[in-house]
Amino acid sequence: MGRSAFFALVLALALAVCVAPVERKCLLSGSWRSDTSCRMVVSTLDKDNRFSGFYLPGPAAGYSELLTSPLEGSQQDTELVPQPTFSFTVNWRLQDSETARTSVFLGQCYVDPKGEETLHALWLLREAADSPAEDWKGTRIGTSTFTRIK
Amino acid sequence: MGRSAFFALVLALALAVCVAPVERKCLLSGSWRSDTSCRMVVSTLDKDNRFSGFYLPGPAAGYSELLTSPLEGSQQDTELVPQPTFSFTVNWRLQDSETARTSVFLGQCYVDPKGEETLHALWLLREAADSPAEDWKGTRIGTSTFTRIK
Amino acid sequence: MGRSAFFALVLALALAVCVAPVERKCLLSGSWRSDTSCRMVVSTLDKDNRFSGFYLPGPAAGYSELLTSPLEGSQQDTELVPQPTFSFTVNWRLQDSETARTSVFLGQCYVDPKGEETLHALWLLREAADSPAEDWKGTRIGTSTFTRIK
Amino acid sequence: MGRSAFFALVLALALAVCVAPVERKCLLSGSWRSDTSCRMVVSTLDKDNRFSGFYLPGPAAGYSELLTSPLEGSQQDTELVPQPTFSFTVNWRLQDSETARTSVFLGQCYVDPKGEETLHALWLLREAADSPAEDWKGTRIGTSTFTRIK
Repeated sequence: MGRSAFFALVLALALAVCVAPVERKCLLSGSWRSDTSCRMVVSTLDKDNRFSGFYLPGPAAGYSELLTSPLEGSQQDTELVPQPTFSFTVNWRLQDSETARTSVFLGQCYVDPKGEETLHALWLLREAADSPAEDWKGTRIGTSTFTRIK
Repeated sequence: MGRSAFFALVLALALAVCVAPVERKCLLSGSWRSDTSCRMVVSTLDKDNRFSGFYLPGPAAGYSELLTSPLEGSQQDTELVPQPTFSFTVNWRLQDSETARTSVFLGQCYVDPKGEETLHALWLLREAADSPAEDWKGTRIGTSTFTRIK
Repeated sequence: MGRSAFFALVLALALAVCVAPVERKCLLSGSWRSDTSCRMVVSTLDKDNRFSGFYLPGPAAGYSELLTSPLEGSQQDTELVPQPTFSFTVNWRLQDSETARTSVFLGQCYVDPKGEETLHALWLLREAADSPAEDWKGTRIGTSTFTRIK
Repeated sequence: MGRSAFFALVLALALAVCVAPVERKCLLSGSWRSDTSCRMVVSTLDKDNRFSGFYLPGPAAGYSELLTSPLEGSQQDTELVPQPTFSFTVNWRLQDSETARTSVFLGQCYVDPKGEETLHALWLLREAADSPAEDWKGTRIGTSTFTRIK
């Protein structure tokens, strides 16, 4: 390649970088911190947009007996939508507890003009009940917001 | 074996059958009907208690554009608990709709003394929003009860 | 009026009664039983469609320490809609408990073709938290269905 | 009063101010701004800790047809608890809409060490349905946080 051809290529690449719109895609892969100071680590997505990972309790979560707990979920294809919805399930591992607790999170990933991603989610948390008569009080509800840990 | 010994054995077996607790296990595999007349077909469980399946709209569901939609989930191990909790996600397929809708169900399977299984679940249903400012109105909530179709 | 005219009138009236739609209005006033065997007694409505009353725990409610607890709420005007929405708040009175618990119910009253009324409601139940860090786990959710006690 | 007595008084008052615990009580009375930029104006409390007021839509709420809507509710007695729970109902007034929409908010007021009050609430929003078969999709859910407008 001659010198001028080389400079033309560099120039083209530079222009491409500058002109390209912010194409930051919302992927759940990576590390996130919740508004309650919990951490979440999510694997890379497989070809069906599924992921697995771990949920790590924060310092002030109130459930001091929480251990690192596995999660599984999936998200919408970012080829189709820039701000995908997602869902995942956490099977809580607890110290000294025989009662199963499971959470489902349902949310959407938003990207702001600077490319910052935020996850907005509603969750349900169920504690196993002994009988249908006790079922009514088994489910809690709330929201979580996650920002990416860089 | 003498005649009286034989009768003693039969009697022992008969008593064992009568006295044995109902050991019916709650597995999500099979066909279910919801209290809103929808149907759900769930695969056999894999070794990690995961399942997949389909959700079929009922006649009067109100969302007439609903198509048969895939679901994925998992349940607690019935070796450990007789009335397992479960969770699954439905990615709704809709006629003539560009907006993604996803539901998460979180519930528990109960068995009554006759061995009849009932699924009690709470669900969240999210419609994708265009921006965080529209996010607040994107999530509906409700309950579903399912009984097995025999 | 001649005899045949008289009979024609009687016939017309009889037909009117038969054909007339069931005009039973959904009022919350009265006694109700929930699907968890709790009872609820609601006062007559004041001119602004407000009511007060009491919620009485059932035999198997799981919160054995529940006492009869006061409720306050309002419903839509049945002059405007035949199947009004309603909301009410219950401030739970508990034996041996210092922690405040409050529920809000939000629902709708439906009348079937026979004039039977059913209340469908979703509720939130909040337990006071010590700090914002504990707030996330303070709210439970569920549904209740009520039928009138005659 | 002599000069030294005067200084002693000033010193005593200054110490009193410094040493006094922050006795700021959480009252809902006043003006609040939600995290979705809506405003809420709440009356002074009556002797039973009841209040009324108005909810004013924000610029970007997504329901552009919202009008100023009346609210009614009550809170726990601040003589008994420093961080009271509260509940209120909003009957939404909408332009060009015949369908009733009602929200219930259930939350708690928290005071930080600087005396800043924040309201954390979960809400349900119900749209009237035509029949029980349509009831399942009538209720939305979410959270709101309010800070005082000074």
